Amino acid sequence: MIRFESDYTEGTHPEIIKKLAETNLEQTIGYGEDEYCDNASKIIKHLCNNDVDIYFLVGGTQANTTIICSALRPYQGVISADTGHINVHETGAIEATGHKILSIPSLDGKIIASQIEVLCNIHFNDTGREHAVQPGMVYISNPTENGTIYKYSELKKINEVCKKYSLYLFLDGARLGYGLMASENDLTLENITELCDVFYIGGTKVGALFGEAVVIKNENIKKDFRYNIKQHGGMLAKGRLLGIQFETLFKDNLYFKISLHAIKLANMLREAFNKAGFDFLYNSPTNQLFPIIEDKILDKLSKKYTFSYWKRIDENHSAVRFCTSWATKETDVLALINDINKTIL
Amino acid sequence: MIRFESDYTEGTHPEIIKKLAETNLEQTIGYGEDEYCDNASKIIKHLCNNDVDIYFLVGGTQANTTIICSALRPYQGVISADTGHINVHETGAIEATGHKILSIPSLDGKIIASQIEVLCNIHFNDTGREHAVQPGMVYISNPTENGTIYKYSELKKINEVCKKYSLYLFLDGARLGYGLMASENDLTLENITELCDVFYIGGTKVGALFGEAVVIKNENIKKDFRYNIKQHGGMLAKGRLLGIQFETLFKDNLYFKISLHAIKLANMLREAFNKAGFDFLYNSPTNQLFPIIEDKILDKLSKKYTFSYWKRIDENHSAVRFCTSWATKETDVLALINDINKTIL
Amino acid sequence: MIRFESDYTEGTHPEIIKKLAETNLEQTIGYGEDEYCDNASKIIKHLCNNDVDIYFLVGGTQANTTIICSALRPYQGVISADTGHINVHETGAIEATGHKILSIPSLDGKIIASQIEVLCNIHFNDTGREHAVQPGMVYISNPTENGTIYKYSELKKINEVCKKYSLYLFLDGARLGYGLMASENDLTLENITELCDVFYIGGTKVGALFGEAVVIKNENIKKDFRYNIKQHGGMLAKGRLLGIQFETLFKDNLYFKISLHAIKLANMLREAFNKAGFDFLYNSPTNQLFPIIEDKILDKLSKKYTFSYWKRIDENHSAVRFCTSWATKETDVLALINDINKTIL
Amino acid sequence: MIRFESDYTEGTHPEIIKKLAETNLEQTIGYGEDEYCDNASKIIKHLCNNDVDIYFLVGGTQANTTIICSALRPYQGVISADTGHINVHETGAIEATGHKILSIPSLDGKIIASQIEVLCNIHFNDTGREHAVQPGMVYISNPTENGTIYKYSELKKINEVCKKYSLYLFLDGARLGYGLMASENDLTLENITELCDVFYIGGTKVGALFGEAVVIKNENIKKDFRYNIKQHGGMLAKGRLLGIQFETLFKDNLYFKISLHAIKLANMLREAFNKAGFDFLYNSPTNQLFPIIEDKILDKLSKKYTFSYWKRIDENHSAVRFCTSWATKETDVLALINDINKTIL
Repeated sequence: MIRFESDYTEGTHPEIIKKLAETNLEQTIGYGEDEYCDNASKIIKHLCNNDVDIYFLVGGTQANTTIICSALRPYQGVISADTGHINVHETGAIEATGHKILSIPSLDGKIIASQIEVLCNIHFNDTGREHAVQPGMVYISNPTENGTIYKYSELKKINEVCKKYSLYLFLDGARLGYGLMASENDLTLENITELCDVFYIGGTKVGALFGEAVVIKNENIKKDFRYNIKQHGGMLAKGRLLGIQFETLFKDNLYFKISLHAIKLANMLREAFNKAGFDFLYNSPTNQLFPIIEDKILDKLSKKYTFSYWKRIDENHSAVRFCTSWATKETDVLALINDINKTIL
Repeated sequence: MIRFESDYTEGTHPEIIKKLAETNLEQTIGYGEDEYCDNASKIIKHLCNNDVDIYFLVGGTQANTTIICSALRPYQGVISADTGHINVHETGAIEATGHKILSIPSLDGKIIASQIEVLCNIHFNDTGREHAVQPGMVYISNPTENGTIYKYSELKKINEVCKKYSLYLFLDGARLGYGLMASENDLTLENITELCDVFYIGGTKVGALFGEAVVIKNENIKKDFRYNIKQHGGMLAKGRLLGIQFETLFKDNLYFKISLHAIKLANMLREAFNKAGFDFLYNSPTNQLFPIIEDKILDKLSKKYTFSYWKRIDENHSAVRFCTSWATKETDVLALINDINKTIL
Repeated sequence: MIRFESDYTEGTHPEIIKKLAETNLEQTIGYGEDEYCDNASKIIKHLCNNDVDIYFLVGGTQANTTIICSALRPYQGVISADTGHINVHETGAIEATGHKILSIPSLDGKIIASQIEVLCNIHFNDTGREHAVQPGMVYISNPTENGTIYKYSELKKINEVCKKYSLYLFLDGARLGYGLMASENDLTLENITELCDVFYIGGTKVGALFGEAVVIKNENIKKDFRYNIKQHGGMLAKGRLLGIQFETLFKDNLYFKISLHAIKLANMLREAFNKAGFDFLYNSPTNQLFPIIEDKILDKLSKKYTFSYWKRIDENHSAVRFCTSWATKETDVLALINDINKTIL
Repeated sequence: MIRFESDYTEGTHPEIIKKLAETNLEQTIGYGEDEYCDNASKIIKHLCNNDVDIYFLVGGTQANTTIICSALRPYQGVISADTGHINVHETGAIEATGHKILSIPSLDGKIIASQIEVLCNIHFNDTGREHAVQPGMVYISNPTENGTIYKYSELKKINEVCKKYSLYLFLDGARLGYGLMASENDLTLENITELCDVFYIGGTKVGALFGEAVVIKNENIKKDFRYNIKQHGGMLAKGRLLGIQFETLFKDNLYFKISLHAIKLANMLREAFNKAGFDFLYNSPTNQLFPIIEDKILDKLSKKYTFSYWKRIDENHSAVRFCTSWATKETDVLALINDINKTIL
């Protein structure tokens, strides 16, 4: 079975497993205060080109929870697309820390500045506003859960409305590499740092065994962040494991190279779906593709390939998700394309 | 610098890093539902010899939090030694989920059944009991944070008082291997399963890169446990990383062999401290030693070795912690013993 | 200024203030264990005609929070209309106890059984369901925040889908009296007890100074409920204040009589709005009316009367809320009707 | 039966019930924004002689919870005497909002500045401090749960150590009137305002039906405090009930006069216990007395009087609590004294 269901079906980039093996019996101090973490931080800070703090956490839900509840007061909530990972895919982890998610309808995973403006305008102009949750933060993911990405101009407008209403802006970059390498992208790490208060660079889905690098620009969120990490179970004893992985990923631009690899293969696959006449549920320029396919064809493909079932479209069609990743082999993509072409004949 | 400050200064046992490298580019499904996790579970279930569920989590604080808040009702608290890890070393992670820790004074890290009995007796016989937190669980660690261990008879008595007052019994086994291999120990994994509702077998401090294997016997705690894991950020995307590690540790008793290694070296070191005339703060038969040493001597030793500062004893003496582990080299212990002998001349 | 903005602009029914004055210097034990609370409980139990527990709480948000977090496990959420009081008007009090609200779109404040069925069907049939909040309870209000009410047959169907998916059914009766006395109503307290696991009978908006009577039928929610009350700050020291109020309200059907008074006046007012040619935003048969009125007319009325601004309808029209209550004077309603008729000439 | 078990066995001061009756059918806006609340605030602000915000809450647990979780960050805890009401008598209400109580041993209910200093010194100088809860606030009660009170000099020293470590100082004044009127007292409302960041003036136990007046001096805690009140279920719909009560209590110094009444009767009773040769468990100069009495004598007294059982002292003696209050009748105290004298013959 060839797996296209997600971008975390393999272990880690060979450079990382090699480095972990090489350093395995070295002795270091624990909890992320070792040299590997320091080095990785320095490299990432340089790319962000700002006075930021860097922390390495094990996974995405942990990162989202720790960041959001570090930033908000108890009566504040976080604005998110209704499709946002924190809203539908984290078993209420955010609410478990006491915060409501103020969801905004989204067609493709993105929200736009004017939606935030409307919501805040209603809240802050209501004389009975203390009866409702106060918006305190905006959460966006880039790429989104649907593979779409924000343009610089869109992010800039969101940044402006956040400033206007004193909201923190937080970007979940679980798949950031695939976003930055997409052809349509016009954002850099430096831009993101400039426009957001906090974001993270995903490792789990982009070449690491596990791990997300949290980048904090806002001084309020920086304060005592390690206490928050520990309280949420994110203070890895052998913190160097994260340092080693991110040092390897960012030392020679490995992160960007392997992301680009996934994008190239996704582009090949997208073109094949297009040629085969399939529509897409979302217009994703990144490594996740959401073709709408006849159920009969899906049955055939599922004999040999795995993919994620996404949504029923009509009696005979479904939207599914195919992912490429840093680890996807070109031969597997070519085989899949070949089989697609065969099935539609 | 030779490190004795903790049992997590190295990476992982060479067998594990080898296995991780070998399986690195295999494709598996995520979130702990792969074959490696299944195999590891089967082996551990066999050792526990009971109808238990096994879940693999990344770290100790995460395991403690997830277990405790899965078991308790909102108005219930968990009884713990005041020295318990959850009470003093987890930044209020348990309270962050809403539960009070009902602490009991402890001299050496252990609590005894009669202390629990007294506390429960007072609570449940008070007509105004609903004004206080209801005891709902007992938390013990074995070995304790001070290296001491429970005897079968002690654990049996705690089990009985727990039954009497409908308390869950939870054993934190972050260093369980070192406890089970101590000369004084008379407990087995099967005994612990028999006497506790839930416990975990620590990997992070006993040969793994990271990871704890949670063993649940009580049906109430089993129910929907994966939801709780996810909510607390513990659902590792590449869950197989934990399966591979625990399969390797338990397949050929590697866990017990490497624990025994640490105990043997700790015994050598204990004898050396004894001969040198040092008292111990706690009577630990496991891999953590807490000698009381003149500050002048500590100054000398700290040029070459790291250890944890524990407590000031008097103007000139301090208690410190030296740990051995699965990774400690005999030559390093011998060097340390040699230097101890030299410094006291 | 004559106030129609809400049903809590006055103090309490004269019988209650009289009774409070009469008993004022009596000595009783505290925390709701006095004879007045006992008597009030007995009367209400008799009306519910079931083996229920009764608890008296100070207010609605407190009642909602205490009930919901008594019933749910940490990873469970509560299904509610998106217009539900807990979803939009309690500053995230439910989320502050860790639970997500799973909101369902509602046009008039009500939800229907098939909406719950769809949501549960999706959740419980998803293999990755542990990544999402598990539905654990259904929250409805009757009358709703929009004045609408449930028929017996509708509530019965909701009850059935709740049983099918093991959901608790909780009815918020902050304005229950006004619902039970509406002409369209076909429910009794006994029916509600039969069909719900827990509900409360609102006092604050129906004649009491403050207070809600929580009626619990389900044994799981009954268990240790007083601990939950205390933890949420609802254990009133002078608990008898609540007992005296509810005893007075239910002894001679006062609660129903004064509710009927409000309904009669609402009916007069509704008819007047109708005659004046105004549409209504919601089709409310209870004490809250939501006429859609030209802004110019509203300006005139607001010189003499208060009402709640609800929603802009178009450039020149708004929906507003007028409430009658146990305390509304017929002369005030007649004056208002007179002024409505004058303004539309 | 004559009740001395607590200071909340009666309703409210006759002036208050009279005022509630007089204003009963007036119409006001809700949620504490009426004129009665405004007036009460003004009077209390004048007494505090500082730029403070005043909020009226229903009860003590609610006030403690709302204040503490408004002030603290998620990883911070509150320092309290182990005997503190929040630590032992509120069913974990503080922990339910996520915060650990850092308890300090106390013999008589008070803590002293040097205890706080030691605790903070250890925490903030530890390199691994992020593994423990950060002290963020000091909670004291005055009078304490044991009837003892703080002198100006003691409170001043606590204030200084709080400033040194950036801790908020919060004084729980559930029985503040009885403290301020005690002969030994040298504090005023103005002093307390000067030395604390936030405190509350208890009404429930000092003449009100219910209610506590929260006084906030610190700007950080003032910010958005009404959101916090609402989230914790403390936004009383008919907020004027609190305004009317506190206006009545503070308009003509009624609060101080009725507190003094209780103190005078407590003094008579204390003298009688002294003369009868009884020791006291705590040296309380306020309205709570804790005599140590032979069980045989207690048996006799309990035929006619209620009191609270506090603690077994030895095989034949117990400490009990007798309270006087604003409502205690001198004739009842004289009868009790008479009976004490008879029983010891």
